[in-house]
Amino acid sequence: MNMNDVSLHRERPDVCGDAHPKALLRAVQEDGDFLLKLADQHVVSVDQFSRETLRQLFRLAAKYEANPNRFSTPLQGKILISAFYEPSTRTRLSFESAWHRLGGDIMSITDRSTTGIAKGESLSDVAEMFNNYGDCVVLRDNNEHSIEEMLGSLRIPIINAGNGADEHPTQAMADMYALFKWRPELVSDDEQKQKIRIGVVGVPNKMRTVRSFLKILSKFPDAVEELVVIHAQGNADELFGADQREQLESAGIRISTSQDMNAELPRLDVVYINAISWEGDTFSTYGSEFQLSAASPLKDDAIILHPLARGDELSCDLDQTPHNWYFSQARGAVFLRMALLTCMVQRAERVIDVV
Amino acid sequence: MNMNDVSLHRERPDVCGDAHPKALLRAVQEDGDFLLKLADQHVVSVDQFSRETLRQLFRLAAKYEANPNRFSTPLQGKILISAFYEPSTRTRLSFESAWHRLGGDIMSITDRSTTGIAKGESLSDVAEMFNNYGDCVVLRDNNEHSIEEMLGSLRIPIINAGNGADEHPTQAMADMYALFKWRPELVSDDEQKQKIRIGVVGVPNKMRTVRSFLKILSKFPDAVEELVVIHAQGNADELFGADQREQLESAGIRISTSQDMNAELPRLDVVYINAISWEGDTFSTYGSEFQLSAASPLKDDAIILHPLARGDELSCDLDQTPHNWYFSQARGAVFLRMALLTCMVQRAERVIDVV
Amino acid sequence: MNMNDVSLHRERPDVCGDAHPKALLRAVQEDGDFLLKLADQHVVSVDQFSRETLRQLFRLAAKYEANPNRFSTPLQGKILISAFYEPSTRTRLSFESAWHRLGGDIMSITDRSTTGIAKGESLSDVAEMFNNYGDCVVLRDNNEHSIEEMLGSLRIPIINAGNGADEHPTQAMADMYALFKWRPELVSDDEQKQKIRIGVVGVPNKMRTVRSFLKILSKFPDAVEELVVIHAQGNADELFGADQREQLESAGIRISTSQDMNAELPRLDVVYINAISWEGDTFSTYGSEFQLSAASPLKDDAIILHPLARGDELSCDLDQTPHNWYFSQARGAVFLRMALLTCMVQRAERVIDVV
Repeated sequence: MNMNDVSLHRERPDVCGDAHPKALLRAVQEDGDFLLKLADQHVVSVDQFSRETLRQLFRLAAKYEANPNRFSTPLQGKILISAFYEPSTRTRLSFESAWHRLGGDIMSITDRSTTGIAKGESLSDVAEMFNNYGDCVVLRDNNEHSIEEMLGSLRIPIINAGNGADEHPTQAMADMYALFKWRPELVSDDEQKQKIRIGVVGVPNKMRTVRSFLKILSKFPDAVEELVVIHAQGNADELFGADQREQLESAGIRISTSQDMNAELPRLDVVYINAISWEGDTFSTYGSEFQLSAASPLKDDAIILHPLARGDELSCDLDQTPHNWYFSQARGAVFLRMALLTCMVQRAERVIDVV
Repeated sequence: MNMNDVSLHRERPDVCGDAHPKALLRAVQEDGDFLLKLADQHVVSVDQFSRETLRQLFRLAAKYEANPNRFSTPLQGKILISAFYEPSTRTRLSFESAWHRLGGDIMSITDRSTTGIAKGESLSDVAEMFNNYGDCVVLRDNNEHSIEEMLGSLRIPIINAGNGADEHPTQAMADMYALFKWRPELVSDDEQKQKIRIGVVGVPNKMRTVRSFLKILSKFPDAVEELVVIHAQGNADELFGADQREQLESAGIRISTSQDMNAELPRLDVVYINAISWEGDTFSTYGSEFQLSAASPLKDDAIILHPLARGDELSCDLDQTPHNWYFSQARGAVFLRMALLTCMVQRAERVIDVV
Repeated sequence: MNMNDVSLHRERPDVCGDAHPKALLRAVQEDGDFLLKLADQHVVSVDQFSRETLRQLFRLAAKYEANPNRFSTPLQGKILISAFYEPSTRTRLSFESAWHRLGGDIMSITDRSTTGIAKGESLSDVAEMFNNYGDCVVLRDNNEHSIEEMLGSLRIPIINAGNGADEHPTQAMADMYALFKWRPELVSDDEQKQKIRIGVVGVPNKMRTVRSFLKILSKFPDAVEELVVIHAQGNADELFGADQREQLESAGIRISTSQDMNAELPRLDVVYINAISWEGDTFSTYGSEFQLSAASPLKDDAIILHPLARGDELSCDLDQTPHNWYFSQARGAVFLRMALLTCMVQRAERVIDVV
């Protein structure tokens, strides 16, 4: 290694700057009431959130991202219980970073095997314990029912950070936040805006990230010209879960399906790709025959979203191209979580403009 | 799940309110000297503590619990080393929550296998290391001699959070604190107070929680009309350890034993139950033939204490009854530990009324 | 255990006091520019550091150690990612204590098996994630190339806390800091100072601690009369790596080798001993035939350094002798790391005297 070259490089693509968050901030008018109402709400599913609540959350996230050093104490004196019974360093650190940036303290559980749960303690009793120890719980578990089992006993709010194959609501919010940062007019109420074509590479019925993303997409049908679900032949019969397609269509989203990604790419504005599906303690890979790279026939101004971590489906040669919005998406997830956590523990009034 | 019902419910039984802590606070007159003397004291055994020191600790715990948001900075700048070589999420989080609520920082060790100890490093050397890194150590280990091995090298105070089958002094303090919260007159010096009958379901010779609880009970013989040890037939010969029964009786506590829990229940004011005994890396279950439930013949105003986590010996159908003081006990443990930790690291003067 | 004797003893040998750091502080004149230039620098190897930068770092470390409670907020609002993919409680806690003492927050990774890396995620992608979550990374890994793989993607500074068998630069700095605390004239530019004879028991080609220590020694040849490398017969052929001996000699350090420790001891001022060499996931022991004890023929005023944890090569009967500077060395490592971390995250201006 050349020891003369160990300075870090702070140059970064525009997606890491503050121009996009500032534009998003301007595109939404503040209405703090929607944020104040999130106080003491559990966050289990995207279904809980209205379009306007989401808009206000994206606005607050954009305010945080546009002024990363301005709000350092809203969570002072608050304690987060970060319970990752299904280990996930990426998601855990994203939540913990969000909490620390706002001045709060954290207690982490990173291994289910060392807990009373392994000895047969009920999740209801664990929740009782949490009531005494902290002000908010972030839960990741491979059992999709764990969060429900805790709800009945909790007197502090809990946030679902991925429950088995079911949902991952803050991931979906972060996905949507990235999309609106990219083109803020999409989140506005402007009826003349240019709608987008979104391709989703994956199996909505099997992947919690895709399931949650489609749920949140259904709140913003006015932004979507068409949704194209791109899947392998073998998954055709199990593509959608019960009511999944109906929920989207009744919201007004036009859906098509395809098994030929490269045929679809030239007309897509956004490509959402993910290949991993968590199933209990293990995972399956779907659609590994689909691989995006700098050689893919993408529109010049198309962007790619990916919840990360990635596998072979997303080539690193895309990282330095303008198609790369997945890094911005990961970065924005921290600010989105900051916004949501602030509201859940009754501190929204410290950060909204007009109280 | 009904997504319209994900608000949390803050209604809670009175045991979580502030009426009881306030009553306890009034029942004891402050004498801060007893707390100031705890500065730089290790906490290994209940035996170290005088009756009056305990009374003052309970008073400070009650002050914290009655004003949970009033004291947020007494441990500012102090670092806790939370060393759980025997994993225990419940106890670890209770200590860590106590420390965080007072404004301190924490470094956690949750797994012995990743430490130098696993590679043969002596505990004396580990203690030397701790001297340089923090201001206080909380140690949980399945070897009862570990804490002694550290004492010789430590220049910062250490607190025993359970050493094998030996002791768990802060658990006993939390047990007693719950009992005094329930009926504050018991901690007063009033000679006319109504004494209580306490049943302990377990094997004092085998269980660290019971051992420590009986030790602390012997400091308050004026509160106890009778102690009934309820045990299975098979444990009759090993019920008490050396001097254990003698220590209680010489303190003035009348003891009886029984193998028929339901026959005893109608005349007990307090039932202390626990079925698990830690033995090295594993645990045994004692008295699983005894099971308390809402159908048990409890006195109307009897309370149940349990150090948790629970097994089949304590039915969940008791949770919503007034007999449930075990949740209050778990909650109070945080405030009790706050009181003790404050004193150990020389910050008592920041929280006592008159210095 | 005698329960009357659980107070801790704060008496400590002079090596833990503030006399030595204060003397070192006076021996170096402040030149803050060298510290300001460390902003946003990665720390991979001792080779990066000039003699004068090291002198200024030692000075700042001494300022911290001489006034341990004076600087409690320079890292307020900063988040450390403490990534110990190769578990090491000692080094992890030393870094985390340093960060906490300066008021920063921490997120820890203590187990590689729970991370995305175990699932095949590239270190480059992990580094991208870290950019969004923290302000500085401390990395320990058993793969010596891991840190290089991260460098290309990082926009926050990273510090090498041990990369396989390669280097451990902050350990070397802590070693040298201990040596200069012991005899501050050695760090001065005084040409009349009394040079020292240093014996190193170990295999420079195999041990990262020894490799890094010799690198830093080569920056201060004016302090060294002679360097004696003491090794077992079996290691004679592999004692030095490529250029390792040449680097020292071209810096002006006279080197000899020996296989008879006791014959060398009577003329050594400093003995640096270590027996463990990390090799991937495991370790080898070198030179276990060499054992220092209170019976060894040490000069009266000779000191012993050891990076710890120790094995049989360093007898505990030396702990209470004036030869013991290895405890001071471990203690000083915290302050040395405080100095380096402060500079890396652009907070040097908050602690230097003249800005």
